[in-house]
Amino acid sequence: MMSKIEAMLLELKDTSEFMVDLAYSSLLYNNTEIAEEVIFLEGRMDELGADIHEAIVDFGKEKPDEITKISVIIRLQMAAEEIANAAASIADVVLRGLGEHPVIQMSIQESEVTIEKATVSDDSILVGKKFGDIRLGSISGMYVIAIKRGNQYIYGPNKYTEIKAGDVLIARGPEESADYFIDIATGAEKEL
Amino acid sequence: MMSKIEAMLLELKDTSEFMVDLAYSSLLYNNTEIAEEVIFLEGRMDELGADIHEAIVDFGKEKPDEITKISVIIRLQMAAEEIANAAASIADVVLRGLGEHPVIQMSIQESEVTIEKATVSDDSILVGKKFGDIRLGSISGMYVIAIKRGNQYIYGPNKYTEIKAGDVLIARGPEESADYFIDIATGAEKEL
Repeated sequence: MMSKIEAMLLELKDTSEFMVDLAYSSLLYNNTEIAEEVIFLEGRMDELGADIHEAIVDFGKEKPDEITKISVIIRLQMAAEEIANAAASIADVVLRGLGEHPVIQMSIQESEVTIEKATVSDDSILVGKKFGDIRLGSISGMYVIAIKRGNQYIYGPNKYTEIKAGDVLIARGPEESADYFIDIATGAEKEL
Repeated sequence: MMSKIEAMLLELKDTSEFMVDLAYSSLLYNNTEIAEEVIFLEGRMDELGADIHEAIVDFGKEKPDEITKISVIIRLQMAAEEIANAAASIADVVLRGLGEHPVIQMSIQESEVTIEKATVSDDSILVGKKFGDIRLGSISGMYVIAIKRGNQYIYGPNKYTEIKAGDVLIARGPEESADYFIDIATGAEKEL
Protein backbone atom coordinates (compact mmCIF):
# COMPACT_ATOMS: atom_id res chain seq x y z
CA MET A 1 0.00 0.00 0.00
CA MET A 2 2.62 2.52 1.10
CA SER A 3 4.93 1.78 -1.82
CA LYS A 4 2.08 2.50 -4.24
CA ILE A 5 1.59 5.89 -2.56
CA GLU A 6 5.33 6.50 -2.65
CA ALA A 7 5.47 5.79 -6.37
CA MET A 8 2.64 8.26 -6.91
CA LEU A 9 4.36 10.91 -4.76
CA LEU A 10 7.55 10.52 -6.74
CA GLU A 11 5.59 10.96 -9.97
CA LEU A 12 3.89 14.02 -8.46
CA LYS A 13 7.28 15.50 -7.56
CA ASP A 14 8.85 14.74 -10.94
CA THR A 15 5.82 16.02 -12.86
CA SER A 16 5.61 19.31 -10.97
CA GLU A 17 9.35 19.93 -11.33
CA PHE A 18 9.18 19.17 -15.03
CA MET A 19 6.18 21.49 -15.44
CA VAL A 20 8.13 24.40 -13.93
CA ASP A 21 11.04 23.73 -16.26
CA LEU A 22 8.77 23.50 -19.32
CA ALA A 23 6.65 26.50 -18.33
CA TYR A 24 9.60 28.86 -17.96
CA SER A 25 11.12 27.46 -21.17
CA SER A 26 7.86 27.99 -23.08
CA LEU A 27 7.85 31.63 -21.99
CA LEU A 28 11.54 32.24 -22.67
CA TYR A 29 11.35 30.76 -26.17
CA ASN A 30 7.68 31.72 -26.75
CA ASN A 31 6.97 28.08 -27.66
CA THR A 32 3.25 27.22 -27.66
CA GLU A 33 3.89 23.49 -28.23
CA ILE A 34 5.80 23.28 -24.96
CA ALA A 35 3.18 25.43 -23.21
CA GLU A 36 0.51 22.94 -24.31
CA GLU A 37 2.59 20.15 -22.79
CA VAL A 38 2.41 21.97 -19.45
CA ILE A 39 -1.39 22.14 -19.67
CA PHE A 40 -1.52 18.42 -20.53
CA LEU A 41 0.62 17.64 -17.49
CA GLU A 42 -1.68 19.71 -15.28
CA GLY A 43 -4.38 17.14 -16.14
CA ARG A 44 -2.04 14.33 -15.12
CA MET A 45 -1.40 16.13 -11.80
CA ASP A 46 -5.15 16.26 -11.14
CA GLU A 47 -5.48 12.51 -11.75
CA LEU A 48 -2.52 11.80 -9.51
CA GLY A 49 -3.93 14.06 -6.80
CA ALA A 50 -7.24 12.20 -6.86
CA ASP A 51 -5.50 8.80 -6.76
CA ILE A 52 -3.28 9.84 -3.85
CA HIS A 53 -6.27 11.20 -1.96
CA GLU A 54 -8.10 7.90 -2.35
CA ALA A 55 -5.05 5.86 -1.36
CA ILE A 56 -4.29 7.84 1.81
CA VAL A 57 -7.91 7.66 2.96
CA ASP A 58 -7.66 3.85 2.73
CA PHE A 59 -4.23 3.92 4.38
CA GLY A 60 -5.51 6.13 7.21
CA LYS A 61 -8.43 3.81 7.95
CA GLU A 62 -6.07 0.86 8.08
CA LYS A 63 -3.34 2.57 10.12
CA PRO A 64 -4.87 5.41 12.15
CA ASP A 65 -1.64 5.89 14.14
CA GLU A 66 0.15 6.96 10.95
CA ILE A 67 -1.57 10.34 10.97
CA THR A 68 1.72 12.30 10.96
CA LYS A 69 2.80 10.57 7.79
CA ILE A 70 -0.59 11.19 6.25
CA SER A 71 -0.50 14.88 7.10
CA VAL A 72 2.94 15.18 5.49
CA ILE A 73 1.66 13.48 2.34
CA ILE A 74 -1.30 15.87 2.16
CA ARG A 75 0.98 18.89 2.59
CA LEU A 76 3.36 17.57 -0.05
CA GLN A 77 0.52 16.93 -2.47
CA MET A 78 -0.94 20.39 -1.96
CA ALA A 79 2.44 22.06 -2.41
CA ALA A 80 3.07 20.09 -5.60
CA GLU A 81 -0.35 21.13 -6.86
CA GLU A 82 0.41 24.81 -6.16
CA ILE A 83 3.67 24.48 -8.06
CA ALA A 84 1.84 22.85 -10.97
CA ASN A 85 -0.85 25.55 -10.99
CA ALA A 86 1.74 28.30 -11.04
CA ALA A 87 3.51 26.57 -13.93
CA ALA A 88 0.19 26.30 -15.79
CA SER A 89 -0.47 30.01 -15.32
CA ILE A 90 2.91 30.78 -16.90
CA ALA A 91 2.09 28.47 -19.83
CA ASP A 92 -1.28 30.20 -20.11
CA VAL A 93 0.48 33.51 -20.76
CA VAL A 94 2.21 31.89 -23.74
CA LEU A 95 -0.95 30.20 -25.05
CA ARG A 96 -2.87 33.47 -24.98
CA GLY A 97 -0.25 35.01 -27.21
CA LEU A 98 1.03 37.41 -24.58
CA GLY A 99 4.46 35.83 -24.87
CA GLU A 100 4.84 37.48 -28.27
CA HIS A 101 6.03 40.48 -26.34
CA PRO A 102 9.18 38.86 -25.04
CA VAL A 103 9.74 39.76 -21.42
CA ILE A 104 13.24 38.38 -21.41
CA GLN A 105 15.33 39.06 -24.49
CA MET A 106 17.30 36.02 -25.55
CA SER A 107 20.37 38.26 -25.75
CA ILE A 108 20.61 38.35 -21.99
CA GLN A 109 20.97 34.58 -21.83
CA GLU A 110 24.33 32.95 -22.12
CA SER A 111 23.54 31.19 -25.37
CA GLU A 112 20.69 30.69 -27.76
CA VAL A 113 19.12 27.64 -26.24
CA THR A 114 15.91 26.04 -27.43
CA ILE A 115 13.60 23.25 -26.36
CA GLU A 116 12.21 20.88 -28.98
CA LYS A 117 9.74 18.02 -29.24
CA ALA A 118 10.20 15.29 -31.83
CA THR A 119 8.39 11.99 -32.38
CA VAL A 120 10.61 8.99 -33.11
CA SER A 121 9.52 7.39 -36.39
CA ASP A 122 9.62 3.64 -37.14
CA ASP A 123 12.61 4.11 -39.44
CA SER A 124 14.61 6.43 -37.16
CA ILE A 125 18.10 5.16 -36.36
CA LEU A 126 17.28 5.86 -32.68
CA VAL A 127 14.76 2.99 -32.43
CA GLY A 128 15.97 0.26 -30.10
CA LYS A 129 19.04 2.22 -29.02
CA LYS A 130 19.96 3.06 -25.45
CA PHE A 131 21.11 6.61 -24.65
CA GLY A 132 24.40 5.22 -23.36
CA ASP A 133 25.09 3.65 -26.78
CA ILE A 134 24.34 6.62 -28.99
CA ARG A 135 25.63 9.59 -26.97
CA LEU A 136 22.99 11.78 -28.62
CA GLY A 137 23.72 14.61 -26.19
CA SER A 138 27.43 14.92 -26.79
CA ILE A 139 27.10 14.40 -30.57
CA SER A 140 24.11 16.60 -31.35
CA GLY A 141 24.25 19.00 -28.41
CA MET A 142 20.57 18.25 -27.74
CA TYR A 143 19.96 16.65 -24.36
CA VAL A 144 16.72 14.68 -23.95
CA ILE A 145 15.16 15.84 -20.68
CA ALA A 146 12.04 13.66 -20.90
CA ILE A 147 10.34 11.03 -23.01
CA LYS A 148 6.59 10.86 -23.47
CA ARG A 149 5.58 7.28 -24.16
CA GLY A 150 1.81 7.02 -24.61
CA ASN A 151 0.48 8.77 -21.54
CA GLN A 152 3.55 7.98 -19.45
CA TYR A 153 6.52 10.26 -18.97
CA ILE A 154 10.09 9.22 -18.32
CA TYR A 155 11.89 12.13 -16.65
CA GLY A 156 15.64 12.42 -17.00
CA PRO A 157 16.22 9.25 -19.04
CA ASN A 158 19.55 7.62 -18.22
CA LYS A 159 22.09 5.72 -20.29
CA TYR A 160 20.11 2.49 -19.95
CA THR A 161 16.85 3.99 -21.24
CA GLU A 162 15.90 2.47 -24.61
CA ILE A 163 14.26 4.61 -27.28
CA LYS A 164 11.16 3.16 -28.92
CA ALA A 165 9.31 4.08 -32.11
CA GLY A 166 6.51 6.49 -31.25
CA ASP A 167 8.39 8.03 -28.31
CA VAL A 168 8.10 11.79 -28.10
CA LEU A 169 11.52 13.14 -27.14
CA ILE A 170 11.68 16.49 -25.38
CA ALA A 171 15.17 17.91 -25.67
CA ARG A 172 17.06 21.07 -24.81
CA GLY A 173 20.07 22.39 -26.64
CA PRO A 174 21.54 25.07 -28.91
CA GLU A 175 19.20 26.46 -31.57
CA GLU A 176 21.50 25.43 -34.40
CA SER A 177 21.24 21.75 -33.38
CA ALA A 178 17.44 21.64 -33.30
CA ASP A 179 16.88 20.71 -36.97
CA TYR A 180 19.48 17.96 -36.88
CA PHE A 181 17.89 16.51 -33.73
CA ILE A 182 14.42 16.54 -35.30
CA ASP A 183 15.75 14.92 -38.50
CA ILE A 184 17.47 12.15 -36.52
CA ALA A 185 14.26 11.44 -34.57
CA THR A 186 11.94 11.55 -37.55
CA GLY A 187 14.23 9.41 -39.70
CA ALA A 188 15.09 12.09 -42.27
CA GLU A 189 18.73 11.94 -41.19
CA LYS A 190 20.38 8.49 -40.87
CA GLU A 191 23.87 9.51 -39.79
CA LEU A 192 24.52 10.20 -36.12
CA MET B 1 15.83 49.93 -17.76
CA MET B 2 14.35 46.84 -19.40
CA SER B 3 17.60 44.87 -19.25
CA LYS B 4 17.73 45.48 -15.50
CA ILE B 5 14.19 44.08 -15.19
CA GLU B 6 15.15 41.16 -17.43
CA ALA B 7 18.13 40.33 -15.25
CA MET B 8 15.88 40.36 -12.18
CA LEU B 9 13.29 38.14 -13.92
CA LEU B 10 15.97 35.63 -14.83
CA GLU B 11 17.14 35.57 -11.22
CA LEU B 12 13.52 35.15 -10.11
CA LYS B 13 13.11 32.19 -12.47
CA ASP B 14 16.40 30.56 -11.50
CA THR B 15 15.78 31.06 -7.79
CA SER B 16 12.26 29.61 -7.83
CA GLU B 17 13.38 26.60 -9.86
CA PHE B 18 16.29 25.99 -7.52
CA MET B 19 13.99 26.31 -4.48
CA VAL B 20 11.71 23.57 -5.84
CA ASP B 21 14.70 21.31 -6.43
CA LEU B 22 16.12 21.98 -2.95
CA ALA B 23 12.74 21.69 -1.22
CA TYR B 24 11.95 18.26 -2.64
CA SER B 25 15.52 17.15 -1.96
CA SER B 26 15.32 18.32 1.64
CA LEU B 27 12.18 16.23 2.12
CA LEU B 28 13.50 13.16 0.33
CA TYR B 29 16.73 13.12 2.33
CA ASN B 30 15.25 14.73 5.45
CA ASN B 31 17.98 17.36 5.33
CA THR B 32 17.29 20.39 7.53
CA GLU B 33 20.36 22.29 6.27
CA ILE B 34 18.98 22.23 2.74
CA ALA B 35 15.50 23.11 4.01
CA GLU B 36 16.97 26.20 5.70
CA GLU B 37 18.53 27.19 2.39
CA VAL B 38 15.03 27.18 0.87
CA ILE B 39 13.76 29.52 3.58
CA PHE B 40 16.76 31.80 3.04
CA LEU B 41 16.00 31.92 -0.69
CA GLU B 42 12.38 32.79 0.03
CA GLY B 43 13.71 36.01 1.57
CA ARG B 44 15.71 36.69 -1.59
CA MET B 45 12.52 36.15 -3.66
CA ASP B 46 10.72 38.77 -1.55
CA GLU B 47 13.50 41.30 -2.16
CA LEU B 48 13.49 40.57 -5.88
CA GLY B 49 9.71 40.87 -5.99
CA ALA B 50 9.85 44.30 -4.37
CA ASP B 51 12.63 45.46 -6.71
CA ILE B 52 10.76 44.24 -9.80
CA HIS B 53 7.58 45.93 -8.64
CA GLU B 54 9.41 49.24 -8.24
CA ALA B 55 11.14 48.90 -11.61
CA ILE B 56 7.98 48.12 -13.57
CA VAL B 57 6.10 51.02 -12.02
CA ASP B 58 8.86 53.34 -13.27
CA PHE B 59 8.91 51.57 -16.63
CA GLY B 60 5.12 51.85 -16.95
CA LYS B 61 5.16 55.58 -16.26
CA GLU B 62 7.84 56.06 -18.87
CA LYS B 63 6.28 53.81 -21.51
CA PRO B 64 2.53 53.57 -20.91
CA ASP B 65 2.00 51.74 -24.24
CA GLU B 66 4.01 48.78 -22.94
CA ILE B 67 1.18 47.65 -20.71
CA THR B 68 1.02 44.13 -22.26
CA LYS B 69 4.64 43.55 -21.40
CA ILE B 70 4.09 44.88 -17.90
CA SER B 71 1.12 42.60 -17.34
CA VAL B 72 3.17 39.57 -18.46
CA ILE B 73 5.94 40.55 -16.05
CA ILE B 74 3.46 40.86 -13.17
CA ARG B 75 1.96 37.44 -13.98
CA LEU B 76 5.40 35.88 -14.23
CA GLN B 77 6.46 37.39 -10.94
CA MET B 78 3.32 36.20 -9.17
CA ALA B 79 3.67 32.69 -10.58
CA ALA B 80 7.32 32.54 -9.50
CA GLU B 81 6.29 33.71 -6.04
CA GLU B 82 3.63 30.97 -5.80
CA ILE B 83 6.24 28.40 -6.80
CA ALA B 84 8.62 29.76 -4.17
CA ASN B 85 5.93 29.73 -1.48
CA ALA B 86 5.02 26.14 -2.26
CA ALA B 87 8.70 25.18 -2.07
CA ALA B 88 8.98 26.95 1.30
CA SER B 89 5.96 25.05 2.64
CA ILE B 90 7.67 21.77 1.71
CA ALA B 91 10.86 22.90 3.46
CA ASP B 92 8.75 23.89 6.45
CA VAL B 93 7.59 20.27 6.83
CA VAL B 94 11.24 19.24 7.12
CA LEU B 95 12.14 22.04 9.55
CA ARG B 96 9.26 21.17 11.86
CA GLY B 97 10.63 17.66 12.12
CA LEU B 98 7.73 16.05 10.31
CA GLY B 99 10.15 14.71 7.72
CA GLU B 100 11.42 12.26 10.29
CA HIS B 101 8.56 10.06 9.18
CA PRO B 102 9.87 9.52 5.68
CA VAL B 103 7.06 9.72 3.16
CA ILE B 104 9.18 8.34 0.39
CA GLN B 105 11.51 5.51 1.28
CA MET B 106 14.90 5.86 -0.31
CA SER B 107 14.58 2.24 -1.44
CA ILE B 108 12.11 3.25 -4.11
CA GLN B 109 14.64 5.55 -5.70
CA GLU B 110 17.07 4.35 -8.27
CA SER B 111 20.11 4.96 -6.14
CA GLU B 112 21.03 6.44 -2.82
CA VAL B 113 21.49 10.01 -3.81
CA THR B 114 22.25 12.82 -1.42
CA ILE B 115 22.61 16.58 -1.52
CA GLU B 116 25.44 18.23 0.40
CA LYS B 117 26.69 21.70 1.27
CA ALA B 118 30.37 22.36 1.80
CA THR B 119 32.32 25.58 2.30
CA VAL B 120 35.55 25.90 0.33
CA SER B 121 38.41 26.62 2.72
CA ASP B 122 41.44 28.79 1.93
CA ASP B 123 43.67 25.73 1.65
CA SER B 124 41.33 23.62 -0.44
CA ILE B 125 42.81 22.41 -3.74
CA LEU B 126 39.63 23.70 -5.41
CA VAL B 127 40.52 27.38 -4.84
CA GLY B 128 41.22 29.19 -8.11
CA LYS B 129 40.24 26.19 -10.25
CA LYS B 130 37.60 26.21 -12.98
CA PHE B 131 35.11 23.34 -13.10
CA GLY B 132 36.30 22.50 -16.62
CA ASP B 133 39.84 21.97 -15.31
CA ILE B 134 39.07 19.73 -12.35
CA ARG B 135 36.19 17.56 -13.60
CA LEU B 136 34.95 17.29 -10.02
CA GLY B 137 31.69 15.71 -11.18
CA SER B 138 33.15 12.86 -13.16
CA ILE B 139 35.88 12.17 -10.59
CA SER B 140 33.93 12.41 -7.33
CA GLY B 141 30.42 11.67 -8.61
CA MET B 142 29.21 14.85 -6.88
CA TYR B 143 27.84 17.48 -9.25
CA VAL B 144 27.76 21.07 -8.02
CA ILE B 145 24.28 22.41 -8.79
CA ALA B 146 24.82 25.85 -7.27
CA ILE B 147 27.40 28.05 -5.58
CA LYS B 148 26.54 30.51 -2.86
CA ARG B 149 29.03 33.36 -2.87
CA GLY B 150 28.21 35.88 -0.18
CA ASN B 151 24.55 36.61 -0.75
CA GLN B 152 24.73 35.80 -4.46
CA TYR B 153 23.91 32.44 -6.01
CA ILE B 154 25.40 31.00 -9.16
CA TYR B 155 22.98 28.40 -10.52
CA GLY B 156 24.29 25.59 -12.68
CA PRO B 157 27.95 26.66 -12.75
CA ASN B 158 29.63 25.81 -16.05
CA LYS B 159 33.15 24.70 -16.97
CA TYR B 160 34.38 28.30 -16.94
CA THR B 161 33.15 29.03 -13.41
CA GLU B 162 36.05 29.56 -11.03
CA ILE B 163 35.85 28.35 -7.45
CA LYS B 164 36.83 30.83 -4.75
CA ALA B 165 37.72 30.39 -1.09
CA GLY B 166 34.59 30.91 0.99
CA ASP B 167 32.25 29.61 -1.73
CA VAL B 168 29.51 27.35 -0.45
CA LEU B 169 29.14 24.49 -2.92
CA ILE B 170 25.79 22.72 -3.09
CA ALA B 171 26.23 19.36 -4.78
CA ARG B 172 24.21 16.26 -5.57
CA GLY B 173 25.60 12.76 -5.90
CA PRO B 174 25.80 9.26 -4.48
CA GLU B 175 25.85 9.00 -0.70
CA GLU B 176 29.21 7.22 -0.65
CA SER B 177 30.87 10.20 -2.37
CA ALA B 178 29.59 12.82 0.07
CA ASP B 179 32.45 12.59 2.61
CA TYR B 180 35.11 12.74 -0.10
CA PHE B 181 33.45 15.81 -1.61
CA ILE B 182 33.29 17.58 1.75
CA ASP B 183 36.94 16.71 2.46
CA ILE B 184 38.06 18.11 -0.91
CA ALA B 185 36.13 21.34 -0.31
CA THR B 186 37.26 21.83 3.27
CA GLY B 187 40.89 21.01 2.48
CA ALA B 188 41.12 17.80 4.53
CA GLU B 189 41.74 15.84 1.31
CA LYS B 190 44.37 17.16 -1.11
CA GLU B 191 44.14 14.54 -3.84
CA LEU B 192 41.48 14.86 -6.53
